[in-house]
Amino acid sequence: MRRNYRKKDLPVADIRRYLEPGPTVLVSSRWKEETNIMTMGWHTVMEFSPSMIGCMITAANYSFDMIRKSGECVINIPTYDMIDTIIGIGNSTGAEVDKFEEYGLTQVVAEKVQAPLIKECYANFECKVIDKQLLSRYNFFVLEVVKAHVAVAPKFPRTVHYRGDATFMVAGKNVSYPGKFKAQNL
Amino acid sequence: MRRNYRKKDLPVADIRRYLEPGPTVLVSSRWKEETNIMTMGWHTVMEFSPSMIGCMITAANYSFDMIRKSGECVINIPTYDMIDTIIGIGNSTGAEVDKFEEYGLTQVVAEKVQAPLIKECYANFECKVIDKQLLSRYNFFVLEVVKAHVAVAPKFPRTVHYRGDATFMVAGKNVSYPGKFKAQNL
Repeated sequence: MRRNYRKKDLPVADIRRYLEPGPTVLVSSRWKEETNIMTMGWHTVMEFSPSMIGCMITAANYSFDMIRKSGECVINIPTYDMIDTIIGIGNSTGAEVDKFEEYGLTQVVAEKVQAPLIKECYANFECKVIDKQLLSRYNFFVLEVVKAHVAVAPKFPRTVHYRGDATFMVAGKNVSYPGKFKAQNL
Repeated sequence: MRRNYRKKDLPVADIRRYLEPGPTVLVSSRWKEETNIMTMGWHTVMEFSPSMIGCMITAANYSFDMIRKSGECVINIPTYDMIDTIIGIGNSTGAEVDKFEEYGLTQVVAEKVQAPLIKECYANFECKVIDKQLLSRYNFFVLEVVKAHVAVAPKFPRTVHYRGDATFMVAGKNVSYPGKFKAQNL
């Protein structure tokens, strides 16, 4: 059963807590009257402040041009309860299917971008494309996170992490080592 | 207790199996007579073939200049049994400590780069820096994996995934959905 997360604002410098572990994410976009969603696994945090993310999106993907033209997208973090949706979205194309409708997902109006948030996800990061230097050569977008929404609970989401070959790793236990880290390395 | 992995060659196009889930990795480097190791969490797969990885390394890091000058490094994937080493390496600097010696790690000669492999890790990916376009602005290296070594077993490594705040997520269960993926999306 899907979760219904209540959300709060998160300082954009803190999004690494949710992206650095490497979850498979859903990227929502809007161009003119059309919206779309894609599944993405190739992304990395690039900086705390400004809050930056880099990601590779195949140019053949229907979302590629929507994100390139609009200069915006939302990175949504789904949890294990949404596994069928994650796989379905990754194996269909916006050229043929309205994915919000097909997968029964709810659009929420974002604050700083035109692309919609996906309500059912644990977190939503509103992003603007800030650098296209590596776009023509590698399809690599550099994004700035301009607004972040995250579920009030649980503290640690049960994300899924794609291994290839139709297999995901589901986020396991959390282990903390306070006192073993220098302050600047937290 | 540390594992003693027996390893085999892995086709470089297949490294996403181990990097896409987002593990914290150890990056080894060599410049002239000196070697070093750093802990890294900000990386992403960028392409299957050529096999490409992008990663952000803070310029203040001792490894930064070693990798920039040599144009090479090895990305090593450690497992949960090495957690104290992972944290220790991330909280010390090669300017003060010989990390191989300090943490009792074993250097193995790589095949295609001068940087050493870390024997105790589950996998070792030999890399060459192939693009420095984003280096001056974002400290972002684009690497090509030129040789990959991976443990024969287990099939799925118990990696650690950094959440910030001195907390790691340990890789959990694996779930497979054969038949739900289109062949080109595996």
